[in-house]
Amino acid sequence: MMELKVDLGERSYPIYLGEGLLQEASAYFDKHGISKRSPILIVTDDSVAGYHLQPVKDGLQAGGYNVHSFVVPSGESSKSLHMLERIVTASLEAGLDRKSAIVALGGGVVGDLAGFAAASFMRGIAFIQMPTTILAHDSSVGGKVAVNHPLAKNIIGAFHQPEMVLYDVSTLSTLPKRDISAGFSEMIKHGLIWDAEFTSWLEENRERLLALDPQALQYGLYQGCRVKSLVVSEDERENGLRAILNLGHTIGHALEAVAGYNELLHGEAISIGMVGSARLAMKLGYSEEIYTVTKRVLQDFGLPVRLPEHYDTAQIMNAMMHDKKFKEGTMTFVIPTEIGRVEIRSDVRREWVEEVVEQLKREA
Amino acid sequence: MMELKVDLGERSYPIYLGEGLLQEASAYFDKHGISKRSPILIVTDDSVAGYHLQPVKDGLQAGGYNVHSFVVPSGESSKSLHMLERIVTASLEAGLDRKSAIVALGGGVVGDLAGFAAASFMRGIAFIQMPTTILAHDSSVGGKVAVNHPLAKNIIGAFHQPEMVLYDVSTLSTLPKRDISAGFSEMIKHGLIWDAEFTSWLEENRERLLALDPQALQYGLYQGCRVKSLVVSEDERENGLRAILNLGHTIGHALEAVAGYNELLHGEAISIGMVGSARLAMKLGYSEEIYTVTKRVLQDFGLPVRLPEHYDTAQIMNAMMHDKKFKEGTMTFVIPTEIGRVEIRSDVRREWVEEVVEQLKREA
Repeated sequence: MMELKVDLGERSYPIYLGEGLLQEASAYFDKHGISKRSPILIVTDDSVAGYHLQPVKDGLQAGGYNVHSFVVPSGESSKSLHMLERIVTASLEAGLDRKSAIVALGGGVVGDLAGFAAASFMRGIAFIQMPTTILAHDSSVGGKVAVNHPLAKNIIGAFHQPEMVLYDVSTLSTLPKRDISAGFSEMIKHGLIWDAEFTSWLEENRERLLALDPQALQYGLYQGCRVKSLVVSEDERENGLRAILNLGHTIGHALEAVAGYNELLHGEAISIGMVGSARLAMKLGYSEEIYTVTKRVLQDFGLPVRLPEHYDTAQIMNAMMHDKKFKEGTMTFVIPTEIGRVEIRSDVRREWVEEVVEQLKREA
Repeated sequence: MMELKVDLGERSYPIYLGEGLLQEASAYFDKHGISKRSPILIVTDDSVAGYHLQPVKDGLQAGGYNVHSFVVPSGESSKSLHMLERIVTASLEAGLDRKSAIVALGGGVVGDLAGFAAASFMRGIAFIQMPTTILAHDSSVGGKVAVNHPLAKNIIGAFHQPEMVLYDVSTLSTLPKRDISAGFSEMIKHGLIWDAEFTSWLEENRERLLALDPQALQYGLYQGCRVKSLVVSEDERENGLRAILNLGHTIGHALEAVAGYNELLHGEAISIGMVGSARLAMKLGYSEEIYTVTKRVLQDFGLPVRLPEHYDTAQIMNAMMHDKKFKEGTMTFVIPTEIGRVEIRSDVRREWVEEVVEQLKREA
């Protein structure tokens, strides 16, 4: 078992990483003084529930916890105010009070939704994360929780730090192959923005990682979480530094916005976006090597680096304008300046972005 | 103009109290560095809008602000997730961003709803309160914002402190008489829990206050806000001291729960509740004078001190059990121990509470 502390003053919390942690959940709850008198609500989705809900419930109940659960349909559409209302109904019916905890057992969607429920139920109760995807290593650090609005993603939310994150790497074996690759996208991003050595380690260990070797996974998730937590510790409320976490996300979000439903996973969209950022770095005079390495690592992990040709450049540009504000023909981007280092540049010219989107369609 | 600082460290903010402040809103916005580049959304209700929305909009626009508005139906039913979603729609359509502010122009319902919208839109943007009721002096201090769930009031919310409170006492002249009396209920409570001198001042100045004399109102609101802010400064997240603000609220909430729609205003329910607390104080051996004064002040302000006989005691007891937990036959109450001082007592016997509810029906 590895432990990583996310350092946020009074709101600091640990991430426990290891095999079989879900079976031992009750011991971790004890350690953190979670109340046995107040009911606990586990929120999960219908694809995770079948594998993990009953064992987690059984373990906690055996430890003396009063456990209830609420299962949402899997998928982004559960991140809604409607589902929040239903979780609050379940919380009231189960008798949750101010000493209760809400537990997110699942990936990013469940974490965001259950986290916002914990942030707002009775104006904030304890929140515990049990991620079951690789991608969730990213969302489990930083306390950003939210639901979607029909007109915008993640627009209604809060900053609400968990009491702890219990990351059981054994759960990852049930992930579909495409989700595994996509899950590594944010992990690679954490290497690219902060840690050249970790980037090399990822390249060297890609086979073990893709085969879900528990030791390799544990180390990779630890390092990914570590980078994220260093950035978040310095900028909890997203006023400055935290923006570097958006490497690949400006283009990535635009691709997600114009893509059809389920055409691109988030990890896939930002993979293409990171290649785009490396191309923009070249326009700004940085070394081609950044581009070569970025593309190679992503490809090695089975991630897409090319934009399918049917994507319309004008539409993508439009979606970006919606996301970011142009200032007299320039936009702000996170630009890699070497492997393991990025800068926020607000002098990226609109025509470069347009050229790069076109180039992305011709990537080998 | 009087100014009161609510002391909450980094989240401190001023309350400006005076006549005609809404007309000068733009100067106050300037003083607080509210962005003129980012749109502002004013949330108000349809009974306040007719009097004050256009003048406030005109003033802010003349000052160079980009102002939008959203009008909700007046009344508690607007404090819903559905209305929150509609405010977010309006915010997105108006192009609000992270530097934008949401303004609550109205009473407690508008403050709670718009405040929660500001707390959760983009995970929290600036919030400005412009209270237009007497009762709102209470909710404008402390940062508690929330919407209701069909099964429970104020159960989905946040702590979100405003940038400033602009309290224009001239707006109070448009209040219906019943709301005026009910509005003084929390002000009297602030005297009873913290400040005997202020309680005497309220008694002596009741005629000026009920006639809405601007000078008297300004002073009374200032003192009410001052007491609340002293309590809140010591206990922002409601872990201890803040509970004293619940004087009269345990019985009051139960009455509201069993009353028919609009049968009892919140201020009226807690007026009866405060008389009940004074009666409980007598059971605990405290002076009858507390009871005499409490009842006299409330009556002087035209507030009810007697429970109409058709209220069912068993139902009220049930509603209280829902609100608070009985521990082996005792409950926790805020008990006045002298005028200007209260204690949290958890040794209040259930049968005393029952007797007091019966007594309340026979109050002279």
